[in-house]
Amino acid sequence: MNNLYLKAVRGESLKISPVWMMRQAGRYLPEYLDVRKKHEFLEVCSIPELACEVTLQPIRRFKFDAAILFSDILVPLVPMGINLSFGKGHGPQIANPVRSTRDIQNLKNFEPREELGFVLDAIRMIRAELPTDVALIGFTGAPFTLATYLIEGGKPNPFANTKRLMYTEPEAFASLLNFLGTIMADYLHAMVEAGADAVQVFDTWAGILPEREFRNVNLPVLQQIFQHLNSLKIPSTYFALGSSHLLNSIKETGCSVIGLDWRLPIPETRKIIGNDVAVQGNLDPTVLLADEATIRRETRQIVVAGREKGGHIFNLGHGILPMTPISSVEIMLDEIRKA
Amino acid sequence: MNNLYLKAVRGESLKISPVWMMRQAGRYLPEYLDVRKKHEFLEVCSIPELACEVTLQPIRRFKFDAAILFSDILVPLVPMGINLSFGKGHGPQIANPVRSTRDIQNLKNFEPREELGFVLDAIRMIRAELPTDVALIGFTGAPFTLATYLIEGGKPNPFANTKRLMYTEPEAFASLLNFLGTIMADYLHAMVEAGADAVQVFDTWAGILPEREFRNVNLPVLQQIFQHLNSLKIPSTYFALGSSHLLNSIKETGCSVIGLDWRLPIPETRKIIGNDVAVQGNLDPTVLLADEATIRRETRQIVVAGREKGGHIFNLGHGILPMTPISSVEIMLDEIRKA
Repeated sequence: MNNLYLKAVRGESLKISPVWMMRQAGRYLPEYLDVRKKHEFLEVCSIPELACEVTLQPIRRFKFDAAILFSDILVPLVPMGINLSFGKGHGPQIANPVRSTRDIQNLKNFEPREELGFVLDAIRMIRAELPTDVALIGFTGAPFTLATYLIEGGKPNPFANTKRLMYTEPEAFASLLNFLGTIMADYLHAMVEAGADAVQVFDTWAGILPEREFRNVNLPVLQQIFQHLNSLKIPSTYFALGSSHLLNSIKETGCSVIGLDWRLPIPETRKIIGNDVAVQGNLDPTVLLADEATIRRETRQIVVAGREKGGHIFNLGHGILPMTPISSVEIMLDEIRKA
Repeated sequence: MNNLYLKAVRGESLKISPVWMMRQAGRYLPEYLDVRKKHEFLEVCSIPELACEVTLQPIRRFKFDAAILFSDILVPLVPMGINLSFGKGHGPQIANPVRSTRDIQNLKNFEPREELGFVLDAIRMIRAELPTDVALIGFTGAPFTLATYLIEGGKPNPFANTKRLMYTEPEAFASLLNFLGTIMADYLHAMVEAGADAVQVFDTWAGILPEREFRNVNLPVLQQIFQHLNSLKIPSTYFALGSSHLLNSIKETGCSVIGLDWRLPIPETRKIIGNDVAVQGNLDPTVLLADEATIRRETRQIVVAGREKGGHIFNLGHGILPMTPISSVEIMLDEIRKA
């Protein structure tokens, strides 16, 4: 497969950086909103034909170099026995949060090839329809971030219950992360078997960890996951919001690509992580709400910085915002591709 | 005045670090909740006798080395013509947010000694009642953070309107920050005249800025404020959440003390900022929800790190959480003071 994304992931410096966008299938696209008029969010995740359709929508429109499976990091919590719902405007809600050692022990282990077969079917369907030069990315949440949702029971802020458990019952907390890590590694493995060309691990909330706790509590389970992926020779990306203070530890996870939010410019990041790992990012998603000159200027700076050693995939520093105009994405792509 | 806080602010290394806590007057204290049964939040801020009483409550109970005026960073928005309210559980709400150049021009300039005389009266009252070895800290929000509330009209997330204005109308945005900066510098000056021994500038949301925008947009107005305070020889602290990626710029603000959240340990921070400026922090507030051994261990590490060169004020890395047990604060203080 002659795919720019896979070349950049392996560290090749390219004339034109490959590009995709976090949440590229979603609420800023009219064709996605049409689908959502008839189907709830979790329904789109659960029906392979629908997941396939919305995954392909942004590829048809923008010819991105990678498609990312349409799903949600919380989908694998359901077969663990978690009662998950998405209320309108409320974000995820968990009716039976995990608060004690007993709750942790009661979480059901499961075989992703059976319980999440609908996701794997979607991957097979997408891979069959996707042009061969477009990579398909599978993904999961990282154990720590999944744990924050499980423990807080919804949008995890200010993470009080999570950190209380982490500080007060470190063994129970570690057992929860290990349980989640083992399942996620297997789930990612199953995605690769189904046809994913690469995977991304979203550790959205890891940035709330002090550096020492990240290293002690989170790093070991991440290393296990990425070691497993490396043994399969599958390229992997690790993404955590607000993680500038963790970069020294993140480069030890073993991932092939470090996903960057918009906070630290690529050259500053390279000073910390070196050139042995590719980077992905990092346009501030709010730049796409600004005027054309601003979009071009900010895009250009990242394009230029990305050409340096180590490999670069152009992306936003976080998911695209729902109110983003389509024309802004087109301007960004024009600026990247004329490079 | 033989005050440990003021000695540490000036960079002296002390055997025992002075200590206070962000939001030390507030919802975790039963005596504060008693006051709030009879008075709304903004009422407590507006009536000097009440502001004085709740400011002194934590000093009586815990003998902190500094008292911080009980107020809110949004109080000075009201005399600008802003319609501010605090809904129960909703956080601040602004009925007339600022969205255009015209809105910015319509903001009223005002004389803090007249319009915010009740705050200055509270300061005079507190200073008169406070033991002489306890410092009184006045504070304001930083211009950027105040701008996010003004523009978003409430809790600023995901900061889309703020950043759109910043990227699209840089001159209008700069004029808003300069307007706020001039008033805040004057307001802090008035607090010092009224008896504040030191001041703190809260830039809660600056951490959402990319490093370059922080330097271009935010740094100049901060430098003006701290330059003014330095000309008055008043010690000043700058605090921004999630600002590890900004430390190189923050050390150029001219503040006397850099307030640290819990993310980066003090020794790692010192590698970036050097020893020419004092630091304040940085116990993760959620540690105070954990068991005694954890509180002592985490407190101890900060106490030890703080003894190195440059000056250290012990504090939490963010405001104390409402569900924090009083006994946890007592354990933390015991560990600091036996040092």
